[in-house]
Amino acid sequence: MLSKETCEACRADAPQVTDKELAAYMAQIPEWSGISEAGILKLRRSFKFSDYVSALSFTNKVAQLAEAVNHHPDILLEWGKVTVTWWSHKIKGLHKNDFIMAAKTDELQD
Amino acid sequence: MLSKETCEACRADAPQVTDKELAAYMAQIPEWSGISEAGILKLRRSFKFSDYVSALSFTNKVAQLAEAVNHHPDILLEWGKVTVTWWSHKIKGLHKNDFIMAAKTDELQD
Repeated sequence: MLSKETCEACRADAPQVTDKELAAYMAQIPEWSGISEAGILKLRRSFKFSDYVSALSFTNKVAQLAEAVNHHPDILLEWGKVTVTWWSHKIKGLHKNDFIMAAKTDELQD
Repeated sequence: MLSKETCEACRADAPQVTDKELAAYMAQIPEWSGISEAGILKLRRSFKFSDYVSALSFTNKVAQLAEAVNHHPDILLEWGKVTVTWWSHKIKGLHKNDFIMAAKTDELQD
């Protein structure tokens, strides 16, 4: 179960996920989309909330999780909506860590 | 001085800024860019920070300011960087309020 694994800081020479791993991991985080931006594969999901304060609270939870493992996503805060994007800057793509972090992000929802 | 004025919740029939007002207001917030996204004029500025925690702290300050006046920007939190985008959803463009909020955002920097 991805959410129970540990995110380790990614080295620049760490391997990107293979296509086979990508398919297996994506199946475990079905709410997330794989996207490509400027040739870099990323994981993205938007979370909906009934107001701004709830969205801000979730933003802080994700940020605290990120800081704890020193792996930081982009977090876009809008009214009633938070969009989280995970990828590994150092390898310019997706590492298993990113799937672990996506799964952990899902668990932060109330 | 824009930062001393009050942001009022914008009505759907409130006027967008005129070209003349736009030029005058932009001159008062020189660090901000006027951008057009899907035909909607917005104000955007990125703020740099030395670490993630400082960027998160600024995100919270901007969010608290936004909630206090019930006018909410998009806030993109990245490592060491926060990008704030103000516009008035109800009028699909820029109201004087947005310039006031941009000026107030500038004052939240340490």
